[in-house]
Amino acid sequence: MDNKLYSEHIKLKNITINDPFWTNEQELVRNEVIPYQYEALHDRIDGAEKSYSVENFIKAGRVVEKLKNGEDVPVFPADKWCYDDKNTHPDAFRGWVFQDSDVYKWLEAVGYSLINHPDEALEEKADKIIDLICAAQLENGYLDTLYVINNRDEIFSNLKDFHELYCFGHLAEAAVSHYNATGKRKILDAACRFADLICKTFGEDKIRGYGGHEIAEMALIKLYDMTGKKEYLETAKFFIDERGKKPYYYDTVLGRTTVNDNYHYNQAHCEPRKQFEAVGHAVRGVYLYSGMADVAKRCNDEELFNACKKLIENIMHQKMYITGGIGSTVDGEAFTFNYDLPNDLAYSETCASIGLVFFARRMLEISPDAEIADTVERTLYNTVLSGMARDGKSFFYANPLEVLPEASHRDSRKHHVKPVRQKWFGCACCPPNLARMISSIGEYCFTENNDILYIHQFIGCEAKAKNADIEIISTYTENGRVHIKINPQKEFTLAVRIPKWCNNYKFSKPCEIKNSYAYFDIKSETEIYADFDMQVKMIKCSNRVRANIGKIAVTRGPFVYCIEEADNGKSLQMIKIKHRPEFRTDGDIIYAKGCREKECDILYSEWTNPEYTETEIKLIPYYKWGNRGENEMSVYISTL
Amino acid sequence: MDNKLYSEHIKLKNITINDPFWTNEQELVRNEVIPYQYEALHDRIDGAEKSYSVENFIKAGRVVEKLKNGEDVPVFPADKWCYDDKNTHPDAFRGWVFQDSDVYKWLEAVGYSLINHPDEALEEKADKIIDLICAAQLENGYLDTLYVINNRDEIFSNLKDFHELYCFGHLAEAAVSHYNATGKRKILDAACRFADLICKTFGEDKIRGYGGHEIAEMALIKLYDMTGKKEYLETAKFFIDERGKKPYYYDTVLGRTTVNDNYHYNQAHCEPRKQFEAVGHAVRGVYLYSGMADVAKRCNDEELFNACKKLIENIMHQKMYITGGIGSTVDGEAFTFNYDLPNDLAYSETCASIGLVFFARRMLEISPDAEIADTVERTLYNTVLSGMARDGKSFFYANPLEVLPEASHRDSRKHHVKPVRQKWFGCACCPPNLARMISSIGEYCFTENNDILYIHQFIGCEAKAKNADIEIISTYTENGRVHIKINPQKEFTLAVRIPKWCNNYKFSKPCEIKNSYAYFDIKSETEIYADFDMQVKMIKCSNRVRANIGKIAVTRGPFVYCIEEADNGKSLQMIKIKHRPEFRTDGDIIYAKGCREKECDILYSEWTNPEYTETEIKLIPYYKWGNRGENEMSVYISTL
Repeated sequence: MDNKLYSEHIKLKNITINDPFWTNEQELVRNEVIPYQYEALHDRIDGAEKSYSVENFIKAGRVVEKLKNGEDVPVFPADKWCYDDKNTHPDAFRGWVFQDSDVYKWLEAVGYSLINHPDEALEEKADKIIDLICAAQLENGYLDTLYVINNRDEIFSNLKDFHELYCFGHLAEAAVSHYNATGKRKILDAACRFADLICKTFGEDKIRGYGGHEIAEMALIKLYDMTGKKEYLETAKFFIDERGKKPYYYDTVLGRTTVNDNYHYNQAHCEPRKQFEAVGHAVRGVYLYSGMADVAKRCNDEELFNACKKLIENIMHQKMYITGGIGSTVDGEAFTFNYDLPNDLAYSETCASIGLVFFARRMLEISPDAEIADTVERTLYNTVLSGMARDGKSFFYANPLEVLPEASHRDSRKHHVKPVRQKWFGCACCPPNLARMISSIGEYCFTENNDILYIHQFIGCEAKAKNADIEIISTYTENGRVHIKINPQKEFTLAVRIPKWCNNYKFSKPCEIKNSYAYFDIKSETEIYADFDMQVKMIKCSNRVRANIGKIAVTRGPFVYCIEEADNGKSLQMIKIKHRPEFRTDGDIIYAKGCREKECDILYSEWTNPEYTETEIKLIPYYKWGNRGENEMSVYISTL
Repeated sequence: MDNKLYSEHIKLKNITINDPFWTNEQELVRNEVIPYQYEALHDRIDGAEKSYSVENFIKAGRVVEKLKNGEDVPVFPADKWCYDDKNTHPDAFRGWVFQDSDVYKWLEAVGYSLINHPDEALEEKADKIIDLICAAQLENGYLDTLYVINNRDEIFSNLKDFHELYCFGHLAEAAVSHYNATGKRKILDAACRFADLICKTFGEDKIRGYGGHEIAEMALIKLYDMTGKKEYLETAKFFIDERGKKPYYYDTVLGRTTVNDNYHYNQAHCEPRKQFEAVGHAVRGVYLYSGMADVAKRCNDEELFNACKKLIENIMHQKMYITGGIGSTVDGEAFTFNYDLPNDLAYSETCASIGLVFFARRMLEISPDAEIADTVERTLYNTVLSGMARDGKSFFYANPLEVLPEASHRDSRKHHVKPVRQKWFGCACCPPNLARMISSIGEYCFTENNDILYIHQFIGCEAKAKNADIEIISTYTENGRVHIKINPQKEFTLAVRIPKWCNNYKFSKPCEIKNSYAYFDIKSETEIYADFDMQVKMIKCSNRVRANIGKIAVTRGPFVYCIEEADNGKSLQMIKIKHRPEFRTDGDIIYAKGCREKECDILYSEWTNPEYTETEIKLIPYYKWGNRGENEMSVYISTL
């Protein structure tokens, strides 16, 4: 951990994305997802599960008004994860305990979008939402509609399950995004007031608790970076250091006498700086690790950084699908054990991959590492993008690597595996998370310090870096070509990541290659052409992964490929690929010579040589699967 | 369905088992399992979960006594599947709703054991248990401790979930077994009185319900066969014909207005005679199908038989593990869809395989079919036997085909997969079911009618058939040799099954081969030597089974083999077998030339030729796995 290497990402306001691939994704989010979600938050989408989010803010606002006026406000139980409409009181809370966060995620995405695409009508909608949010804030700064509405006396009484610190985190992230876009302080001030309350409430000599669903840690750091207020950093660090200490806060607050040793789900089984294996709920995990990396950098805390390093290595080396998906089981939406990566049972939640990207960028800001940047690329181009339909109107929460529709319908172990993307869910974490990720994609391209500017992702854009104006013209996703124009204000070093998938590459200027980055001394205005040979590759998986014995995956550039029933017929397990087949590409489609084993319906028979017929296998990028109706899909293909 | 072919199995009292393989299993049951279970039923095993079964009978007896004396008896709720000790009343019911059945299964096994092994002390224990049972019977014949103890007014009010008809079934089966062994009528009379009550209660113009866990159907037939009482057959038939009729009884009795269409679990989704695919809870399924076959034969009901035929074919051809295990998922302990046979997630409950043997024998009694007899063999020698440790002291409920202890411990999807056999469970269905199966193994060897005697299983024994005394001297499990001595009272035909696994066989007498049975005309005292070549075989699984692509299983004679970590080291997925390897046998161990792939810890890398080292693979019979502590196991082996 060398603090001379510390760097920062370039902020969105200094980046304009202009990329043949990503602009399209961003337009989808701007034109489809954000408007659709706005309607969903207002419960105006036919056939979609109700969100209740905006409704809850309106109700909470009424409660706050009544409290101010000294009127009586009823008390309802705040004891469930989800509230149906059985409580018919007009001001009863509805939906999931974490429902506020959907509004915040939408607002955060809107902020990112407005930076590059000013849109008066959208800004007005955001302002209205902000008015609703702020009206729901209690005088002391507290802001979570469940407790504001249901029971003010029970605030912060169930940190493990009831997501107040989680909702705070999303509020803070939305506030920073909105302030950066508009310069308006209203929601930022509200977030800071809530943050101040949290700092006053939690700490060494105060409540020694921490959130069951992490995010407050990294959110407090965002506020700290923006305001410079030391308490925010201290409280973030407190949440991390207190976590997992024995006796467990979650035990003592519940008045338990026996020690419950089962807090892996919440990453609270031991102190984070002693955690070296990624365990428990995957989204919570990577959100915590992101906060740990944030604190490690700002406190120059080597021990904490080392834990982060081990955790990200454990994920990348033992617990990550080839698509960048993490979380092998639906049960607890969780990590399992090393090398346990079943294709057909994978949970691989879209949100978890988004969280992995958050974590990875924070690690890159501490120390450049091409493998981590490769992981960002792997995750963005595969599991993150597969979360959204090509029309931006439906979404995957789980991103399996093998799908048989019959199994999804008839095998309860695979009910989470959806053969087609779903409309807005009641528990709609992934779509708004996708919206904020894609709208802010620019923040993941560069890191810089005073001396070096790192290009980690090759996305067409114009960026104002510390030492130079940069323009990237990229056809990277199509043919691996990147054209970099640099107009420096002073001499500096430009470091360009060389993707791991690329065996043959060419730079138009002399450079030094170190640890998979190409370093260029930039002295004056110049242009660099980078050419990454996009060979089709056959990838094998460690033979410790039992699901993939005798199988390979096909990749090209950043994309993992898959076979789909629509192109290759039913029973994809019959498709066999030779070890070194001929590949042919046509646009983003890959054709491979392969064969198809003759189907044998007899359950058990004496072994005989299988019969094959030659066939052409058609592969499409994984992120595009499931856009042609319900059908079989497989990333891994059996070898012959 | 040709009623000239109808036959019956030879009753236990006419068979004495004397077999080098099975005698040992029966001795284990007699000397270990039955005494151990007796203690377990009395809650006298340290460290085992409590059974409460005997305790409940004692309590119910007290209740009956009080009722007779006109004393007040308290009412407790009968609304749960399992009752803990929170209700501290000295007469409160404890344990699972179906706990009575464990006592009945023990008693049934004791009956079978006493037939061949008179044992005064054991008979006395059985008599005492019978006294307890009979004391718990209400005056009207009703007998189920849950309702006798907790609430007499709610008898038969929740047929779907609360197992009264199930417990009745096991009572009847125990009664028949005990009467056959001892000639004592006490428990038989009790069973008949309960059966009479059931016949009076259920029917066309009475309660139109049926049991949620089937067994009453086949149990009533046992009583019918013994007593000739027509009502028992009629009620069995009624239960089958009423099942699945719309509107569903389970809906109407619960006063539902909407139709619940989710009774697959109970095989009540449609009328049994229209069921052609085995679905739902596997044990319930095969118990129902057994009753259906019983009724089909006795009523000469071709439509019902055809459903049975399709169901057993569906099981044998699409839903059965190579070990004879059925039920691919722990979720509902159920069948899933065709060709869905995951090795590592298998439930494959011991009880379900036992039930499959019940069903199969009933089918053989209607129409001889070598494939069905093969299935009995496959099931008995593999999943049934694997249910019990080699010392008779611990048991498998689930019988997976692939085990990685780390997965069992760390992956909640596999918590049902135990790497070592377990002591007595609170829900102890499998061990007593195993005891009654193994003690009555003789009943599965032969079927006969006036003209033909079928030998389906080659177990050393002396048997009194209708037309002959038969002696079988068998070293079948060791070397495939069977020596049959026949002493006929009249001319008849002897039909000997030719096992499907056997390509080369020899009979010492001329015979006609038809549909995998060898037919011999027996005119006078004679001996036949049969020699079945026990070649080691490589078996492939249909390539519609995704879990087994690129893998084979090894069998020898009736035994499926497996590899275990104790013999082959960790990471069994690295072991590769060639398509036609050399096999060497040593006793019941098989050695094969194979190799081991070099471990590669790198999660994703470009495909290169794998490296192998040659190795000798050691295989043991599947039923013996897990007797050397916790370790990896796999039935299927990757091919090279």
